[in-house]
Amino acid sequence: MIIVFTGDGKGKTTAALGQAVRALGRGKKVLIIQFIKNCESGEHLFFKKIQTMALAGKIKIIPAGKGFVKILGDKLPLGEHKKAANIALKLAKKEILGGKWDLVILDEINVAAGLKLIKKKDVLRIFPRKPAQVVILTGRSAPKSFIKKADLVTEMKEIKHPFKKGAQTQIGVEF
Amino acid sequence: MIIVFTGDGKGKTTAALGQAVRALGRGKKVLIIQFIKNCESGEHLFFKKIQTMALAGKIKIIPAGKGFVKILGDKLPLGEHKKAANIALKLAKKEILGGKWDLVILDEINVAAGLKLIKKKDVLRIFPRKPAQVVILTGRSAPKSFIKKADLVTEMKEIKHPFKKGAQTQIGVEF
Repeated sequence: MIIVFTGDGKGKTTAALGQAVRALGRGKKVLIIQFIKNCESGEHLFFKKIQTMALAGKIKIIPAGKGFVKILGDKLPLGEHKKAANIALKLAKKEILGGKWDLVILDEINVAAGLKLIKKKDVLRIFPRKPAQVVILTGRSAPKSFIKKADLVTEMKEIKHPFKKGAQTQIGVEF
Repeated sequence: MIIVFTGDGKGKTTAALGQAVRALGRGKKVLIIQFIKNCESGEHLFFKKIQTMALAGKIKIIPAGKGFVKILGDKLPLGEHKKAANIALKLAKKEILGGKWDLVILDEINVAAGLKLIKKKDVLRIFPRKPAQVVILTGRSAPKSFIKKADLVTEMKEIKHPFKKGAQTQIGVEF
């Protein structure tokens, strides 16, 4: 089963993380591959904390990205980002076919495809048929071909955001 | 800061759970009060597992509901559901004002308000002012007054769902 969490609102990656929590609660095995993140995110720190405990071996989180791409001061050549994303995709394919995991989360893979770090058709190729396990693809602007392939798609739609509100207020004050 | 996750799509509660994961990863304290659920949900089992470990005291999950209301064979008098929801709301108020928790998740509180188990104005009253901590309200059909009060709102919009797809296929086959 393939699930896509997309849209411009908050809650895509966190919804996937919540699915991980539920699956782990039920004794299932979860793999998370992060396509953009490299640093120590809150979720990475959390799953590292519980690694050594009763859930050891049940959860693996791999930050396989090189950080933000072409924003927030990123100066890394695009080729480096591409290389990292393609290694992550290869790993994803291997692990999905391997069948060890009940839930596989490919975090920000939609963004990686949108930025052309990886080819859309290469992503679709990691699913030769509907996977037996649950695979979640997250990230804004999911390609249409991913949505077509998916069984369940939720769009996280931004209705209200404090930063935008702040920005609008500023415009209202300054102009 | 008040966050609302609403809409008809999958991912509202799980997005809140994912926020809990991130917050716990950062060493913060998280309280989850469930307004509808009573049974042992996957998330409940999970947080119980990690309770006794390094995160003890950092996370508390309270299933304060009486289960599904008026669906899936529920035969409990509505008064019982109301009583449970109002106790949960009182607890939420106390805990938010107490200031012990960095993140408070009021799971399915939108639904409890929509079903009139609790009064909308009573929910708004638990926030005398903007709370210092992050409070997340989840559940479909969030009342407009909750959305107005919130700082950040995401609508989880259903784009595609396997059950609906299945139902459509059946209609296509049978008629």
